[in-house]
Amino acid sequence: MKEPWQLTAAEAAAKLQDGALTAEALTRSCLERCAEREAVVKAFTFLDPGLAIRNARRVDKAYAKGVLHGLPLGVKDMIDTADMPTTHNSPLYESLVQGRDAACVGVARGEGAVVFGKTDTVEFAAAGRRALTRNPHDTTRTPGGSSSGSAAAVADGMVPIAFGTQTGGSTIRPASFCGVYAMKPTHGVVNSEGAKRYSHTLDTIGWYGRSPADLHLVARAFRLFGMEAAPATKPVRGLRIALCRGPHWDIAAPESQESLLTAGKRLEVAGAVVEDLTLPASFDTISRAHHIVLYGEGRGAFLQEYLTAPGLLHQDFHDRVLNKEGITAQDMVWAYDHAAACRRLFDALFPGYDAVLAPAAPGEAPVGRQDTGNAIFNSMWTLLHVPCIGIPCIKGPNGLPVGVQVVGPRMGDAALLGVAAAVSPVVDAG
Amino acid sequence: MKEPWQLTAAEAAAKLQDGALTAEALTRSCLERCAEREAVVKAFTFLDPGLAIRNARRVDKAYAKGVLHGLPLGVKDMIDTADMPTTHNSPLYESLVQGRDAACVGVARGEGAVVFGKTDTVEFAAAGRRALTRNPHDTTRTPGGSSSGSAAAVADGMVPIAFGTQTGGSTIRPASFCGVYAMKPTHGVVNSEGAKRYSHTLDTIGWYGRSPADLHLVARAFRLFGMEAAPATKPVRGLRIALCRGPHWDIAAPESQESLLTAGKRLEVAGAVVEDLTLPASFDTISRAHHIVLYGEGRGAFLQEYLTAPGLLHQDFHDRVLNKEGITAQDMVWAYDHAAACRRLFDALFPGYDAVLAPAAPGEAPVGRQDTGNAIFNSMWTLLHVPCIGIPCIKGPNGLPVGVQVVGPRMGDAALLGVAAAVSPVVDAG
Repeated sequence: MKEPWQLTAAEAAAKLQDGALTAEALTRSCLERCAEREAVVKAFTFLDPGLAIRNARRVDKAYAKGVLHGLPLGVKDMIDTADMPTTHNSPLYESLVQGRDAACVGVARGEGAVVFGKTDTVEFAAAGRRALTRNPHDTTRTPGGSSSGSAAAVADGMVPIAFGTQTGGSTIRPASFCGVYAMKPTHGVVNSEGAKRYSHTLDTIGWYGRSPADLHLVARAFRLFGMEAAPATKPVRGLRIALCRGPHWDIAAPESQESLLTAGKRLEVAGAVVEDLTLPASFDTISRAHHIVLYGEGRGAFLQEYLTAPGLLHQDFHDRVLNKEGITAQDMVWAYDHAAACRRLFDALFPGYDAVLAPAAPGEAPVGRQDTGNAIFNSMWTLLHVPCIGIPCIKGPNGLPVGVQVVGPRMGDAALLGVAAAVSPVVDAG
Repeated sequence: MKEPWQLTAAEAAAKLQDGALTAEALTRSCLERCAEREAVVKAFTFLDPGLAIRNARRVDKAYAKGVLHGLPLGVKDMIDTADMPTTHNSPLYESLVQGRDAACVGVARGEGAVVFGKTDTVEFAAAGRRALTRNPHDTTRTPGGSSSGSAAAVADGMVPIAFGTQTGGSTIRPASFCGVYAMKPTHGVVNSEGAKRYSHTLDTIGWYGRSPADLHLVARAFRLFGMEAAPATKPVRGLRIALCRGPHWDIAAPESQESLLTAGKRLEVAGAVVEDLTLPASFDTISRAHHIVLYGEGRGAFLQEYLTAPGLLHQDFHDRVLNKEGITAQDMVWAYDHAAACRRLFDALFPGYDAVLAPAAPGEAPVGRQDTGNAIFNSMWTLLHVPCIGIPCIKGPNGLPVGVQVVGPRMGDAALLGVAAAVSPVVDAG
């Protein structure tokens, strides 16, 4: 008999909906798991058991049950919560309590989620200070970043679902390092208001779960385009999968390469049509365009903090504001237009394929807390605005998880969730 | 001898910088003007004289003087302020006080502005409830929207500068109706974090002043690209101006047509080269693309309020969330790609021209409070992400102001400010 904290979000949701489990009982079980593990994993920046239980009881009293009814939710600590402080892992905001929830938190609460606690993050989900969080699979290693605490908390059973954000690779990469599922939806379909801005072109709210069905629940809460009509899953046989090494294959560690090729082989064995995909030459400079947009928009993103409290702002952000990279107006326009052109090229691959299969991370999670891993296998997809779903696949040489990701066309989130549901039992068979 | 409230921001700034005027004295003068006029104009949703004076005294005590040192600033009431409530003109947020300033407010404070009060707005700067604000030139008429209070407050001398936002035509149109100057910069260069989200592709922070030099001051505070290098003004003689009637000329009222043609003639007389510009045929559907992006992104923008307090949310926003327009995923992708293509086409007009000259509003301000005027002369520029500067030009048949706007290429804000400074004495000669 499983403890409630061991249930996936989808498993727990079924019991919560039919009354076999209460929000309070699940929350208490998660709190017990935290009591056991948090001193080691350090996933949370704020966790008040009394408040989490009060939030659960409010949900248990609701007149109607939403899509996320009763599910404890971890919220990355650069996303505003009306009842909990939001520090952004910055000394500048140590005691900040906002008057209202971020839009994504409000939607989750509106759909019955139990706002459980705030999860540690890289400073402003960008640079500077790292989270204290440790990888639950090996506590000498990073869980990845910047959504460090959210990925680790879900991986370790502390919460069934959690919000992250992705501007480079901050949602999908930690999922690979921690061996959990994650979704970065199409840019802009989930309102990112109330999450700290880094780059308006790139910032995307994402979420973690321990099964593709968990991701599907959260996507339903956000009413992504086509969620009502799309099948929750489809047969693997006949799926057309484009195996895409991408422009940075040479810097993927052997276990990352093995993960992608293994996923491809497993799918082929299961009857999918797997074809090698070489992206057009213009994608060779897509990561450069991402870098320009990131640093160019980062100039304005931290100007407020730079002007009002420079002494409490990490040097990384001074460098952004002072444009140490020397990004020009012309660079910005080139990057925007190049991204727009590549988006059209990428979308044109569909419906020829059901999904693109690509590396999710450079390899296993690095040792230590400072290096949260290279975002290069994610940033191009973030700039392309396309939906990505991270799926665990193999174990690396040190026994740590290494995932892959499936990628769809813009606004193709609902169909991609169906593909993820189909391929996950095959790909995540390690 | 002028009262301090009668000074433009640039005039006041000169005195504030050299110590001939204090922030407190200017603030008190603006408060006196408000005491005289606010009962009629109704520009503010929140105005606490004691708080405004405390904010001024803090600025007077500063160790260094910023670009906006001592200038009272009106803040549209859907932009967060740490020391004042932000209602969004929504019953849902009547008592909301956020823990931190919106990014633009933080930057303004960091540069020495005196946060003065909150200005009335259309609900969420989008739809639903209108502001109570009246046009100072004729109190039976609207000042336009959604930045109703900001435009009216600057026009009436209550504050020298104020923040607005533009998602359709919410900054430039009210400027035309109220006879003031306004700038909508290139999308994304000013961090819009902390302003209520409507459409992440469109929402842009803008500002009002009573001279082009006022707009320049605020642009310097935001460190727009190229501000250090660009000349503050340039000779009118030899400027190449593209007179652009645009795709909606037939629905411009006679005074709006007259304003554009008069501005063109005045510039020609002053030695500028004015040429008629017909936009490529693809611009015929640019306003349709704007509509799709606006309503498509509006689906997610108000989901939080729809789920958490539907009874306090205007029917307009229920319609957005429920997608009454029937916008599809395919529509969205078409609109994004069409906009990206038109952006490249428009930018390619430069450097062949120094600026495009276009109508700023459909005509004089409408009578009453409900109709804040059609945004059709602004929304295409908003979608194109290009900088726009509103300049007063003529008086219409009822004696109300009618302006024009100059438009530049993306990221060409600094050069466009120079053009505005050059052409304003010629165009605004009515």
